Order: sequence, then structure tokens, then C-alpha cells
Amino acid sequence: MAKSQSPETEHPVKAFGWAARDTSAHFSPFNFSRRATGERDVQVKVLYCGVCHSDLHMAKNEWGFTQFPIVPGHEITGIVTEVGSKVEKFKVGDKVGVGCMVGSCRECDQCANDLENYCSKFILTYSSRYTDGTVTYGGYSDKIVADEHFVIRWPENLPLDAGAPLLCAGITTYSPLKYHGLDKPGLNIGVVGLGGLGHVAVKFAKAFGSKVTVISTSINKKKEATERLGADSFLVSRDQEAMQAAAGTLDGIIDTVSAAHPLLPLVNLLKPHSHLIMVGGGEKPLEVPMLPLIFGRKSISGSGIGGLKETQEMVDFAAKHNIFADVEVIPMDYINTAFERLEKSDVKYRFVIDVANSFKAE
Amino acid sequence: MAKSQSPETEHPVKAFGWAARDTSAHFSPFNFSRRATGERDVQVKVLYCGVCHSDLHMAKNEWGFTQFPIVPGHEITGIVTEVGSKVEKFKVGDKVGVGCMVGSCRECDQCANDLENYCSKFILTYSSRYTDGTVTYGGYSDKIVADEHFVIRWPENLPLDAGAPLLCAGITTYSPLKYHGLDKPGLNIGVVGLGGLGHVAVKFAKAFGSKVTVISTSINKKKEATERLGADSFLVSRDQEAMQAAAGTLDGIIDTVSAAHPLLPLVNLLKPHSHLIMVGGGEKPLEVPMLPLIFGRKSISGSGIGGLKETQEMVDFAAKHNIFADVEVIPMDYINTAFERLEKSDVKYRFVIDVANSFKAE
Repeated sequence: MAKSQSPETEHPVKAFGWAARDTSAHFSPFNFSRRATGERDVQVKVLYCGVCHSDLHMAKNEWGFTQFPIVPGHEITGIVTEVGSKVEKFKVGDKVGVGCMVGSCRECDQCANDLENYCSKFILTYSSRYTDGTVTYGGYSDKIVADEHFVIRWPENLPLDAGAPLLCAGITTYSPLKYHGLDKPGLNIGVVGLGGLGHVAVKFAKAFGSKVTVISTSINKKKEATERLGADSFLVSRDQEAMQAAAGTLDGIIDTVSAAHPLLPLVNLLKPHSHLIMVGGGEKPLEVPMLPLIFGRKSISGSGIGGLKETQEMVDFAAKHNIFADVEVIPMDYINTAFERLEKSDVKYRFVIDVANSFKAE
Repeated sequence: MAKSQSPETEHPVKAFGWAARDTSAHFSPFNFSRRATGERDVQVKVLYCGVCHSDLHMAKNEWGFTQFPIVPGHEITGIVTEVGSKVEKFKVGDKVGVGCMVGSCRECDQCANDLENYCSKFILTYSSRYTDGTVTYGGYSDKIVADEHFVIRWPENLPLDAGAPLLCAGITTYSPLKYHGLDKPGLNIGVVGLGGLGHVAVKFAKAFGSKVTVISTSINKKKEATERLGADSFLVSRDQEAMQAAAGTLDGIIDTVSAAHPLLPLVNLLKPHSHLIMVGGGEKPLEVPMLPLIFGRKSISGSGIGGLKETQEMVDFAAKHNIFADVEVIPMDYINTAFERLEKSDVKYRFVIDVANSFKAE
């Protein structure tokens, strides 16, 4: 039905955002529409939206399933402006968050176990097909409408700007630390890569009571990692002597790097029976040595965001421990420059778009 | 001390076996010696010894740490002929087994947790340095002396010939099935490769009450797998349609193949949160796709043999469930031909050397 209509007319509620029209990934203003608030829906005025590296991957269609025009953004915070008649969790004026997902089948084993993120029919917040057949648009926009199940209660003392990246970068690193039992005090945790995901991983691991080692290709980040973020030690991955000295010392590693990189030096840092957890998600397969896995009963494991229940738990934990991202708040019209800088890792550590103030002016 | 002496004179007890002298991996008779039976040692007359593919890897020095001359053999069954004064578990005349290890540090966390196989100082049954500095020699020989901790009580009703391969092939597949919780009835287990390890993996998984799918490059093994070994289904890994139809159906996979092979089709067969368990151990790194691991929270995990306690548990379980290898019993002087056939996978499924009868004649 709605498929044949334009983004501007397919739904009754006028909406405005910034979109990329093709793989040039150049963003510009975009008039579209949002659905009327359904029985279980919440309409949210977007205040802030984090800029995730996957927004750029998607805008360039590097994963091959982008729907153009694309309005990215899945680290969304805002204020509830309307609720459906059967909404139970929220009322108008509540602070809320919307993360990477806006739907799932709600019937499968994964959904039944609060693992909507592993449902085979989960619906991404942008560039996916919603249940009504229309394309989803993300948080680089003035408003969003979502089923309340996929909306997070925002803790009172958690900043709406710097907290927004927790909805992707936060849960992506929190979830595997919990799942693999790496949330117990006194463990030695490695974090590979000190970007949007990595710097939040350091904060969660420290809050769990771990001794944290940051592993990076460059010594340049040492001061930041140890002095500002509180990492206990720092390893340059090309420093073979230091890497050898640290062999077999880590209880688990969160690897946030999406670019191709060698895994053997990281596997060697692990104690037996532990996991190198990949959350970065590059397209290219990586070479994995089998004998070191076998001789230490080690694993290379993937982990992707988290379910809604755990995302709520994560933001509540973050609020309690004063954890949020280090951000550079930008106006919407800075987004093309922001992506250029993101590609050069020139951001500490996450851009967050000041959406509401950007659109006030337009 | 003993290092400077010859294998024939370094110890007081005369021994005889077959050895390879260099990477030609040609085997011929070899006079050497065994240590006197120490306080906690057991001297064993070797009756049978399985021929493991790693014997061939080692004889060719493909893993780079072979000590020549090499007497392989780590699937050893026999009869106790002498015990030390402090030996508690065994008496002369007992049936016993000796597997892949004859020593470990006995002090580290791994040893304390009955995981001697993951001790960083574990001592292989052959081609390793023992605590006295001499090289270890395996079961292609008339006798072996080992610390009783590394000797297995042999169950009365388990055949000494066909049961011998359990000491490597058996524990290598039993241990990860247990560790990853894949021993519960009703699970769907995949077994990749139907050789020495694979055919035993099928038997254990069936005994645990699993539905077993054998995955192979060739349709030729289908009849064997399903009719003789009792596998429930069979997938040809190159049959993309069948592989696609089976996507997301397996609770775990034991991959026994040591040759390079694509892992993505196997990862795709797994349900979320499950493990592709590598036990084959080729030298070359394999390419691993990260996104399918991330989107399904899947793991590629290694596992190497098992500890002594678990090995005892495994042979006791095997005896109870009438599990042993399908073997071709050969005389010692057939070993060079056996290795040629092994390289062509021309054996169903394990050669076992009839050691005692072979040496009676010499």
C-alpha cells in the first residue's frame, strides 16, 4: 500500500530531517512523514542523536542493504509528545531514548528471551522495512514514532546529549561483558580500539571493577586512555615485546575495531577458556589461527547490541555510575564535515547532533 | 645429565619400538630405553596403539617442534607390569590406557581444575621433554612408564583395540560437547568431517540423545554416516540449497577437519548464541566472517583433548554406552603403508597397531 507513495505523503504526520540520497553519502535537508501514533506507539520529539560509525557504513551502502533516501541515527534521546491509548510505560513529557531497533517479531525464542536484537525479523531504526511496508527513518530528524516496547525510560540524572551514544555504543559493549561473565570485580579486561565504542567499554569495565588494558595501534592514545579514561594499562599492538610480556593475562577482550587487523596477537593475550569478543563488524573476513584457539580452549565471539530489557538495565546502570560518552555536540548542518572527520578518527569520541536546536533555526 | 646419552642407554630399562629419524617420516625399528619405575610410576606393557593423524603431522615436523627420532603413539592400551611403591590406583595386571599427556606442572590453576591439557607446561606422550630432561617416546613401542596420574583405568567391557582411539579421538570430541552444554537430549548437533574424530563424535552425540547432522564435502559418506553410524541427516557442504535450508538449525558443531575449508557456511548453520568448535587444528589460519558472528552472537571456539579426570569419565561413559572406534587393526610393520593410506583418508576410521603381537615375532 504505502510503498507506492512518496516519503513525504505516505504517512499523515509531517516530519523533517537530513538524508543522504545515494552512496555519495552527502546529507541535505529532507521532508518526509511519520505515521500517526498507534495504540501502543509513542511519538517523540528528538532532542539529540549520536553519530555512529555504522551511520556512515549504511549511508555508503557498504553492507549492501541500504534503502535510499536514508535518514540515519539510532542513538536518539528526546521527549514524549504523544502516546497511544494502550501505552503503559510512558506519558507526555517523559524523557526517553530510542536505540538501534524499532521492531521484532515478538514471538520467536529470541524475543521471548528479551533478545530482540537476535530475532531474525528485527527492524532497524532506519533503512529497514517496518511492519506497514514503509521504510524506517532514524534520529537525524525532528520526531520519531515507535512502539513503546522499543522505547527506553531515560534516567533523571543521565545527560540527554552525552548519554545518547549509550543506546548503541553503550549496549554494544555492556552486553557482551555481562553475557561472558566479565562484569565481576578483579578481572583483567582488554579493550581494542579507543573510539566511540572503545572509550565507553573502558568506562563500563572500570565500573564493573576490572583492571582495564587498552590495546591500540598507536602510542598517541596512551595518555588519554590512562589519565582521562582511567585505563590501568596500555599496549601498543605492534610492540611485540610488550605484547609477549602480557601474553595469557586477560580474562576477556572487547575488540571494537572494524578495519581489518590481525587477531593472533589478541588471542595470545587471553587466558585459557576466554573470549575475544568482536563488536566492530568489518565487512572483510579476518584470518583466525586455529591452533592457539585449540590449545587454550579460546573463542572468537561476536556480539551485537542488546535486547530492550538489557538496554534499559544498561542506561540505569550508567546513570548510577555516572557513565556517559565523551562527546562533541554539533549542529545538524555540520554532519557532512563530521563524517569526514569520523573517517579520520578525528573525534573524541562521539559526535552528537543537537537536533532540536538545529531545527529551531530552520 | 641424561641429555648427553643416547636413547638406547640413557635409561636402565631396554625398550623397543618403531621410529622416524627425520621428516621423511619413514618408520623403522628402534632400540631405546625407558626409565626405571619411579615411586608414583606405572610400567605398562603396550598391547594396542591407535594411529592418530597428528602422529603423521609430528613425524613430518609440520608443527615445528618435533624431536627426532620420534616414536609416536598416544592412544595406548595395555597391562600394568610394574608399579612404584606409592602408586595407589593400579596393581600389576590391571588394564590401563595412556593418552596424549604424561605430565603437567600439577600446580597451576589449570592443573588444580583437572584441566592438565591446558597447563602451559603439559608434557606430550611423545616428542616432548620429560621432567628429567629426556625425550618422551609414545606407544609405537613395547612398553611405557608413566606417572599414575596420567594413566587411565580401563573399563572391563571396553575393547582394548577399538577402545584405544578414545584416548585422543574420543576425549577430543567428548570434552567440548560437555563443556558447551551439548550433552543434553534433544539438541541438534553437527559434525564436520567423518574421519577418526568425526565418527567418534557422532557416536558420543547420539549417546547424549542428540539429533546428529554430518556435514561433509562428499556425498559418498552419506550411507556410512546415516546407516552405519546412526547420524540422523547428512549435508554436502557444497550443496548451497541444502545448506541454506538447514540455516540456523544447529545448537553446536564439532569441526574435525584440519585442512583449510570455508567456515561461513558452517557458521550459517548455527542457531544464535552457539559455537562452531574447532578440534582439527590445521596450521593455516582460516578466514572468519565477523558480521555473521556478531548478528547471531556466535563463536568460533577451539578445544584440545581433555584433562585426566574427564578422560576417565569419558572412557567409563563409552564403556557404559558401548562406544568405541571403528578400527582396522594392523601389524607394526604396516605403519608406513598405513600413513600413506591415512593421507588419502583411506581408512574406516582408525588404524590401531596390534603392538604386542607385532613384537612377539621380532
